[in-house]
Amino acid sequence: MLTRISPSKAEYTEFSTPSDPQPASVASRLIAVYRIASDASAIEGRAEAIALEQSVELPLSAVDSDVVLQDIVGEVRDVRELRAGLFEVRIGLAVSTTGSEPGQLMNMLFGNASILEDVTLADVELPAEMLTHFGGPNHGIDGLRARVGAGNRALTCSALKPQGLRNDDLARLAGQLARGGIDYVKDDHGLADQAYSPFAARVVMCARAVSEANRETGGATRYVPNITGNLDTLRTQLRVVADEGLDTVLVEPMISGLPDFHAITRAFPHIAFIAHPAMSGAARLAPPLLLGKLFRLLGADATIFPNHGGRFSYSPETCRTLANAARDAWGGLRPCMPAPAGGMTLQRVPEILDFYGDRTMLLVGGSLLAAKERLTDEARAFATRVAGYFEPHG
Amino acid sequence: MLTRISPSKAEYTEFSTPSDPQPASVASRLIAVYRIASDASAIEGRAEAIALEQSVELPLSAVDSDVVLQDIVGEVRDVRELRAGLFEVRIGLAVSTTGSEPGQLMNMLFGNASILEDVTLADVELPAEMLTHFGGPNHGIDGLRARVGAGNRALTCSALKPQGLRNDDLARLAGQLARGGIDYVKDDHGLADQAYSPFAARVVMCARAVSEANRETGGATRYVPNITGNLDTLRTQLRVVADEGLDTVLVEPMISGLPDFHAITRAFPHIAFIAHPAMSGAARLAPPLLLGKLFRLLGADATIFPNHGGRFSYSPETCRTLANAARDAWGGLRPCMPAPAGGMTLQRVPEILDFYGDRTMLLVGGSLLAAKERLTDEARAFATRVAGYFEPHG
Repeated sequence: MLTRISPSKAEYTEFSTPSDPQPASVASRLIAVYRIASDASAIEGRAEAIALEQSVELPLSAVDSDVVLQDIVGEVRDVRELRAGLFEVRIGLAVSTTGSEPGQLMNMLFGNASILEDVTLADVELPAEMLTHFGGPNHGIDGLRARVGAGNRALTCSALKPQGLRNDDLARLAGQLARGGIDYVKDDHGLADQAYSPFAARVVMCARAVSEANRETGGATRYVPNITGNLDTLRTQLRVVADEGLDTVLVEPMISGLPDFHAITRAFPHIAFIAHPAMSGAARLAPPLLLGKLFRLLGADATIFPNHGGRFSYSPETCRTLANAARDAWGGLRPCMPAPAGGMTLQRVPEILDFYGDRTMLLVGGSLLAAKERLTDEARAFATRVAGYFEPHG
Repeated sequence: MLTRISPSKAEYTEFSTPSDPQPASVASRLIAVYRIASDASAIEGRAEAIALEQSVELPLSAVDSDVVLQDIVGEVRDVRELRAGLFEVRIGLAVSTTGSEPGQLMNMLFGNASILEDVTLADVELPAEMLTHFGGPNHGIDGLRARVGAGNRALTCSALKPQGLRNDDLARLAGQLARGGIDYVKDDHGLADQAYSPFAARVVMCARAVSEANRETGGATRYVPNITGNLDTLRTQLRVVADEGLDTVLVEPMISGLPDFHAITRAFPHIAFIAHPAMSGAARLAPPLLLGKLFRLLGADATIFPNHGGRFSYSPETCRTLANAARDAWGGLRPCMPAPAGGMTLQRVPEILDFYGDRTMLLVGGSLLAAKERLTDEARAFATRVAGYFEPHG
């Protein structure tokens, strides 16, 4: 009953170059790119079925309206065999069906198709007016670098954890990481608004610990609180953040929902948003598309993703494609900072920098925190190694 | 690099009975149940790694605090081999880490683990106080039956589509389906707030068409608008719905985000919410858990899911488990109405009713609409067949 070939096992290296948005002349359609596991004899029918599923959700014979047949029904644009049993299918979907709303865009791209186990949403190509409408990062790579005075170097990031610590312990860690010169010190994505470390008090205490460290060192470390909950809660927390003079937050778009994520990036344009991949899954929505393109489209200034060789299973090729989708030229959108993470260590810094270059934020959490009382020194070693890596060697 | 066995291929038939919430004495932990594809020799280590990933996200050696070690670190409670290479792992997670918030609950259950391709979230067991806190359906099966005067019979549902039709065409379809005696006439989940059928006008026109049909027939058909967007938009649309005197809506919780979904079920307790599975995927979060249990926990009065033998690939066992998770006794939560859908036809009504019994809402869309000018008759045949099926045969 279930197909055996998972389309997720194919690499996403042949990703459409984001530098080439469709010209306005075909602006009425966006292109959804699916990977479908299928016999060659069945693929044309599968492609047509998905074009209907993702548009009118009816057999063509049940559609009476000429307007719907011409302007709304999905169009199979191309079917290409990637390897035996795996096909790439490009389907044109009417832009008008998205209602210019992020949730409805996802619904059109993958709403019902997400329930088909042998279909992966691999990529999307959007006309220029959709890029302009959604708007992308408010700050992006340049803004994140500028606010910590980093010039053109790679950035460093670390995390406050484990959850379960009280706010004063978290604030102490934040101060130590700031003294070590980490650019962005973020909450663990598990820190929400729990009784043992309530949000509002945590923000104040960690922000002040980082401020104090910055005054001592002359540094510009940013404390990055994790915001959670529904749109009301997200806004309330953003106001706490802004009131404390902070300008960067962490958010999990696949938990908050993409409509709320987009709403807050537009409502708080002075805040930089670092997107965390929690609940993003890996199997059915291509990571370069979701974490690279779509999070960027909706306003992520940086996007955290599991680096190859860590605790997760992304390949180097997936990581490279994801990073480039986040930061390569794409219409008028600002580049989004790729932030490889997930079991990284100081020893891997040179390798990671060679791989991603300097338009990157390196996120090292647990392996710094394991240094315990030597945390500030370990953080400093991390910051120094990253800052000095691309400098000319004497 | 990627494992070859997908845990999603296992059936979810050994689902924990929802009638047995944990007693208060173990209230401080919820149980997350994972399916992990692994070699037998590695599974203990994998289980421990996931217990850490989903709690402190640190190696144990990096955790200093006794409180965190005792109260926060995930505990592997059981590891069981389901078949060669596939294991069920039960992990106790601290209730306190969820902050009693739906998004953070999902984050704790599957945030980072969702990125591990060989791990599926199969089930969850929640202590009684979490059921009480989230609250579940406001109306559920009894309420949905009562508002259409259905007594104890199965319910019928159909959908307005294709998208791209104008509001007057949609309203005409709504009237025809209502005249045929369908209980719930819902928007297609692709109907959002598009230029060609704007929400507010659609609600008014379809509601009035259904009212008029009800006045003629003496029926109690409900029109069910699809609400979309961020929390602000959802609330605005719900106010339009309530102002028009409607009492039931369709919503896509995996697109709106679970925090917003829960927020609106609590803020609009007089409205019944039918949950649509768009973007729910199928592979990594067990459908009975997500569409049955979790949507119910957060307030779905009915839950739509792809029936076996239709356009999607759920097996009969998955469907039965899902339906029972939605409606079996679970603490004090009201039962949620299972609504099998996805390529259903009138011919299948007896089989579907035999399979699901009368605490079911049958959703037939496209195959009714294919009747075109005979839509009212076809709708009446559907309604009559369902209403009469369990009556004693003379």
